[in-house]
Amino acid sequence: MKKNKKVNAAILIIGNEILSGRTQDKNIAFICNWLNLNCGIIVSEVRIIPDVEKIIVENIRTLSKKFKYVFTTGGIGPTHDDITAQSIAKAFNVKYQYHREAYEILKKYYGEKNFNDGRKKMAKMPEISKLIYNPSSAAPGFITKNVLSLPGVPSILNSMIENCKRYLIKGLKVHSKTLNLFTVESNISKELGNIQKKYKRHVEIGSYPFFRLGKIGVSVVSRSTSKIKLTKVYKEILKEIKKKRVKMLKI
Amino acid sequence: MKKNKKVNAAILIIGNEILSGRTQDKNIAFICNWLNLNCGIIVSEVRIIPDVEKIIVENIRTLSKKFKYVFTTGGIGPTHDDITAQSIAKAFNVKYQYHREAYEILKKYYGEKNFNDGRKKMAKMPEISKLIYNPSSAAPGFITKNVLSLPGVPSILNSMIENCKRYLIKGLKVHSKTLNLFTVESNISKELGNIQKKYKRHVEIGSYPFFRLGKIGVSVVSRSTSKIKLTKVYKEILKEIKKKRVKMLKI
Repeated sequence: MKKNKKVNAAILIIGNEILSGRTQDKNIAFICNWLNLNCGIIVSEVRIIPDVEKIIVENIRTLSKKFKYVFTTGGIGPTHDDITAQSIAKAFNVKYQYHREAYEILKKYYGEKNFNDGRKKMAKMPEISKLIYNPSSAAPGFITKNVLSLPGVPSILNSMIENCKRYLIKGLKVHSKTLNLFTVESNISKELGNIQKKYKRHVEIGSYPFFRLGKIGVSVVSRSTSKIKLTKVYKEILKEIKKKRVKMLKI
Repeated sequence: MKKNKKVNAAILIIGNEILSGRTQDKNIAFICNWLNLNCGIIVSEVRIIPDVEKIIVENIRTLSKKFKYVFTTGGIGPTHDDITAQSIAKAFNVKYQYHREAYEILKKYYGEKNFNDGRKKMAKMPEISKLIYNPSSAAPGFITKNVLSLPGVPSILNSMIENCKRYLIKGLKVHSKTLNLFTVESNISKELGNIQKKYKRHVEIGSYPFFRLGKIGVSVVSRSTSKIKLTKVYKEILKEIKKKRVKMLKI
């Protein structure tokens, strides 16, 4: 992995089952966290779209131009509704064909006798794709230009994510500091706003209400690639909070 | 609620805390399910974006043109990072100002003495907005043209969702039938593909792997606004499955 300054990514979740509400997505938070902590890559946009070729093609084209990387999840299995690979081929105007190594991996995994058409389909991808190996169920993901395609099943996706690293340029790590306060947002909004204004170029301050053991509170989260600026902001918030005699939750 | 044929919606999740992976979103599945079951409205796209005015404005403009309704979540609280209302005003080129009724509701809730600037901010919205009442924490959501703005905290959002109904045109209910099978996708992919092709205009068939009690399985979900077509598809799938002697999971 090389180092770079600011690296961003988008996630494209492909799947009717998420849009119908049938399935609670778990991949977004996982990928966001993994990219953040392991690669210093910031996810700047997520989209969830249905299994419709035209819509996948449009979104691949838009997002791959706009962001350094695009991660897709879903639609790379053996059934008729798995159309991610063919749609990405179309988006980049390249052939959709068997990938020789993927074909061999799958043939070996299933055995020649059980290597049916559905399973063979999982070896088809854009001609320019490289493989993202899958230690849990053999069927590989793939990277096509700057688009990394992973499966939708969280346990399988999780087992493959480390194999994406070799294709990614690393960005600067984003550090964060959190203060959990027993107060309401409106009690500290003015002070936070002023501190945010002062550090707007380097630190991002967010405030998130929580409910804990029957009490209302606010988590104030500051994030920055600069540890020094982050500590400054943290101390300024702490000072304002002490002035207001707000109680903190120690975890 | 009036009745209409096909009604779609988009969801726009506004919040850095989701993109950083800090918070696991729970609003998407909830809203998708609620719209589906209660209003016959299909969610066709979801986007998650950061708390950045320019990006919110762009997305509001795009999505409000493309879909019948847009639901936003997040960014309507009292702090500096709550910029949804002002961004929507900008997107529609209307004034951002105090809503008289919202102001009165909040003043009454907090009491005049405790009605500080942060709390007052929650009464500011696009001049053309109408209120979506909030039974749990007073601060109302609002609808601006076809954009419905709700808070990001799931418990509060959930308590308000029924109050959106009066603004929505109802679509045809989408029915679904699920078969949980102890097999792998590739074993039934050809048959499902053929049935899907036959009914492609009226029924949508999806297949989703699951792991249950150490066993691998596939949920085959068929969805349609036509109960008759849905039953036909269900029976055809059942016939193919019996031919293959696939075991079913009875729940």
